[in-house]
Amino acid sequence: MLLEAVYHRPQLNWCYAYDHETVHLRLRAKKNDLSEVYAFAGDKYAWDSTKELVPMTKFISDALFDYWTCEVKPPFRRLKYGFLLKSGEDQIWMTESEFTKERPVIPDRLFELPYINPGDVFTVPDWVKDAVFYQIFPERFANGDPSNDPEGVLPWGGKPERDNFFGGDLQGVIDHLDHLSELGITAIYFTPLFEATTNHKYDTADYMRIDPHFGDIETIKKLVKACHEKGIRVLFDAVFNHSGKTFAPFVDALEKGEQSRYKDWFHIREFPLEVKDGIPSYDTFGFEPLMPKLNTRNPEVKEYLIKVAEFWIKEVGIDGWRLDVANEVDHDFWRDFRKVVKNANPEAYILGEIWHESSPWLQGDKFDAVMNYPFTEAVLDFVVRGKLDALGFANAIGQQISRYPLQASEVAFNLLDSHDTPRLLTLCEGNKNKMKLAATFLFTYNGTPCIYYGDEVGLDGGPDPDCRKCMEWDPQKQDRDLFAFYQNLIAMRKELAPLRTGSIHFLLAEKNGSRLAYERRLDDERVLVLLNNYDAGQTLELTTDTPIWRDALSGKTREAVNGKLSVRLPAYGYAVLTEAK
Amino acid sequence: MLLEAVYHRPQLNWCYAYDHETVHLRLRAKKNDLSEVYAFAGDKYAWDSTKELVPMTKFISDALFDYWTCEVKPPFRRLKYGFLLKSGEDQIWMTESEFTKERPVIPDRLFELPYINPGDVFTVPDWVKDAVFYQIFPERFANGDPSNDPEGVLPWGGKPERDNFFGGDLQGVIDHLDHLSELGITAIYFTPLFEATTNHKYDTADYMRIDPHFGDIETIKKLVKACHEKGIRVLFDAVFNHSGKTFAPFVDALEKGEQSRYKDWFHIREFPLEVKDGIPSYDTFGFEPLMPKLNTRNPEVKEYLIKVAEFWIKEVGIDGWRLDVANEVDHDFWRDFRKVVKNANPEAYILGEIWHESSPWLQGDKFDAVMNYPFTEAVLDFVVRGKLDALGFANAIGQQISRYPLQASEVAFNLLDSHDTPRLLTLCEGNKNKMKLAATFLFTYNGTPCIYYGDEVGLDGGPDPDCRKCMEWDPQKQDRDLFAFYQNLIAMRKELAPLRTGSIHFLLAEKNGSRLAYERRLDDERVLVLLNNYDAGQTLELTTDTPIWRDALSGKTREAVNGKLSVRLPAYGYAVLTEAK
Repeated sequence: MLLEAVYHRPQLNWCYAYDHETVHLRLRAKKNDLSEVYAFAGDKYAWDSTKELVPMTKFISDALFDYWTCEVKPPFRRLKYGFLLKSGEDQIWMTESEFTKERPVIPDRLFELPYINPGDVFTVPDWVKDAVFYQIFPERFANGDPSNDPEGVLPWGGKPERDNFFGGDLQGVIDHLDHLSELGITAIYFTPLFEATTNHKYDTADYMRIDPHFGDIETIKKLVKACHEKGIRVLFDAVFNHSGKTFAPFVDALEKGEQSRYKDWFHIREFPLEVKDGIPSYDTFGFEPLMPKLNTRNPEVKEYLIKVAEFWIKEVGIDGWRLDVANEVDHDFWRDFRKVVKNANPEAYILGEIWHESSPWLQGDKFDAVMNYPFTEAVLDFVVRGKLDALGFANAIGQQISRYPLQASEVAFNLLDSHDTPRLLTLCEGNKNKMKLAATFLFTYNGTPCIYYGDEVGLDGGPDPDCRKCMEWDPQKQDRDLFAFYQNLIAMRKELAPLRTGSIHFLLAEKNGSRLAYERRLDDERVLVLLNNYDAGQTLELTTDTPIWRDALSGKTREAVNGKLSVRLPAYGYAVLTEAK
Repeated sequence: MLLEAVYHRPQLNWCYAYDHETVHLRLRAKKNDLSEVYAFAGDKYAWDSTKELVPMTKFISDALFDYWTCEVKPPFRRLKYGFLLKSGEDQIWMTESEFTKERPVIPDRLFELPYINPGDVFTVPDWVKDAVFYQIFPERFANGDPSNDPEGVLPWGGKPERDNFFGGDLQGVIDHLDHLSELGITAIYFTPLFEATTNHKYDTADYMRIDPHFGDIETIKKLVKACHEKGIRVLFDAVFNHSGKTFAPFVDALEKGEQSRYKDWFHIREFPLEVKDGIPSYDTFGFEPLMPKLNTRNPEVKEYLIKVAEFWIKEVGIDGWRLDVANEVDHDFWRDFRKVVKNANPEAYILGEIWHESSPWLQGDKFDAVMNYPFTEAVLDFVVRGKLDALGFANAIGQQISRYPLQASEVAFNLLDSHDTPRLLTLCEGNKNKMKLAATFLFTYNGTPCIYYGDEVGLDGGPDPDCRKCMEWDPQKQDRDLFAFYQNLIAMRKELAPLRTGSIHFLLAEKNGSRLAYERRLDDERVLVLLNNYDAGQTLELTTDTPIWRDALSGKTREAVNGKLSVRLPAYGYAVLTEAK
């Protein structure tokens, strides 16, 4: 046994309450090193009568490690525990302080989860597990009301630049809700809607006002109501890390300098507020002078922003917030934000924009989920960049699942592109089959998948601003084959529960190859997904005890012969199979 | 390089802000595996102009691993980073997602500390780093006012039982402050003082009232004032996990059952409130019916208890709180507790009672420190139980230091015994030299040392209740040699700053042996500590480039010959040496 590879800590992804009764334990070990692992657990005040050995199962692997897990339901909500590791004939006990050959007789030096306090349990909104998201960049989705167009608006469909406008607005979204219903999505994430100077609106001027070029509070109420009637939830974008330069308190600070009563609303290093050699004298988002960083530790600022969050939930009925540059805001702010938001709407989804490992924000006291860009990168590395073989891809996915509590993975916000990245079709160099392969993984994985507006009709575009083209509404110019593909994917995901919350097991992940197969399992229901990430046809062979499988997209059946299921897939082909019963 | 042994995560003890400007990074690797380690760090928005390779140093080791560390001061408070690991000719880069031979060109996939928000920085009270604590169990320290004695009080010095009383009180402490001043301690931790039925007072009846057998609010004000005048700080014990059975809200719940307006103040599983087969129908501390667990998630309960904490700080001027059974209370409660307590007294010390790994509570939002029982166990395993050799002991200490941010270690509450354990002298089977050896480690290690009342005059006692004997005030019966020993230890610690906040390096830690030597270093100042944990004299040899060392306790000088310092220590002997200049 390679003891140096064994890892556990009584916190984070390693030990957490999944619900008010259930504790999940995880242990990491060198890949293929251990044959059996047990948790050794009980109540510390009734050790002898409650202690038990609970078998753990290998639930996922990455490049170097296997991750073992089990669940325990402590009768009095308290848990002391250690582990028993076996590798062939060898066995060793693991306590909090050591590895030992001797079975621990008393629980004193074991790990501990002291008490499952209901308030400490990381609880996520259930609806997100079943949702399919759609991201809308409002200035480019549809122009429903030319009367509110900005000055100098350009004809719809022109080339997007950093600073031009095409007149998209909220009425445009209302007008096209049928498109979204037809597609099948069940939630919209809107990039910012509040008054701001730019076309992306990430430089807020007024957090309490819908940008007049988009509409007003009545338009958004109408939009949210119409969405809810169609079973579509709505997420707003909270840009609370920084304001815009035209935000009244910053204007005041600019004008009055040290005399401004708002000077402590920002992180000002020195007066006057100016930019020298590209570096503002006040903290900003990046080094962008337009976006002064807000001092969210200032109780006035904190109260103001949290009231904003509460207002739009209570007044307009939104279903959650996406949090811009969430990682650069202080943790205490988000804790209080969560309390107010969940109080206003216990089902609200709190989604942080964080591109890197997000464990500190996914412990139950801050966010429900983050925008899962590491997922994006793994899929692109596999399908687009050829940087990962099938095994490397499975390992990258395993690494991500292993990092977070299960509830966080169940509502992870998974995306393949956004307003901040090139579009998927462009990354695939126009190869629609590659695009479909990537999307098939997205829709057969846990977490909530998100489609970036227009992807479903073949919109393309390179990095910002090119990825922010006007939506194509001319049916003749829309890719209706892609639309039907996404429609089917969504319908299939809605039908097959294991695709949403089942466990994932990789059955085939080729080293130096491109064939990938995995099983999603929920209770007794199993779904097989097969992917051929290669530019020629390939056959995938799997061992199975189910004789007949049905293709969930085509309806065709596939028969296993002598326990072998053999499926020929075309270049970049895929199959999603259910057990025929 | 054994990559399976390499560990880092962008949080906890691995990456944290030490102050508003400084980030500490740590990386774990297999013991003696790496020859050089570098952090590769910069600002993500100005990567090319800020990136640098920062050498890391090995700061501590445990049984299997070395822990490397460095500090970085990010110019714009944002940090992206990875690591470069070298082992002889081999080298490899570590990013957040992989080990790679290629130097990362862009920072996207590196680890990240997004922004040092001042509110997120774990800030501890500086005075604790220099403090020497003394724990008082008030019922057994001194009877200064016989008029408040409980009914049936026994003569001072009798055998302690679970339920007997000897009349100790606050006036008794006031009367004996000179003893404490003479000893040199600078802070007192009192076990509970509030009204309760037991002699230990952990079953609170009234959180707003000093137990009438101890005195009243005027007595405690007089005591705290007298302590402060002598430079002694005062910590109270907050028993907030559970109340007593005579606490008015619980009495109400007992009487009125489901009709009680206080029924949600507790965790009641079913009515009536009763005990069946030893299991109460309501959650308790352990299974103790006298101690019903408080529902700290109930806003009324939370507000009440936090007001209690604030009241005693504001009204009486106490310097902090020790938190009983702190690990079983919900995390959110402690976060709000910290805010109110630190607002009332920014220098307050918040000390949790947690016996196991305490990382979740030592991140800056909850406690400053915990009662360091794993430290206690390591010292006892080495000096008393013979379970650890010198190397094993050094490893156990290394394991503990490696677990927490530095600021947590700097104010750790280190103890060798307490009201919850047998006394040190008894554990040492009366061998005072062993006791002194253990105490020498305690006083030459970082964190704040605590003496349990009476240890300094030779009080002995087995497990509770025997460890709660009456203090010995007859000078003829006091062990004055021990008193002088502790006096000298305290004086030495006060004089030598490296003993308080210097780094620690083990210079000698014998495998299968008992000789231990370590250096404490602060800036240019060095202190050497040598311990002989053996029942016969032994000689310790160390390489040094300092020719003359002075024994801090005896004043004698020791000369190194040809760069070798050779020190003969008697059985269980010790020496603390400073550089003679």
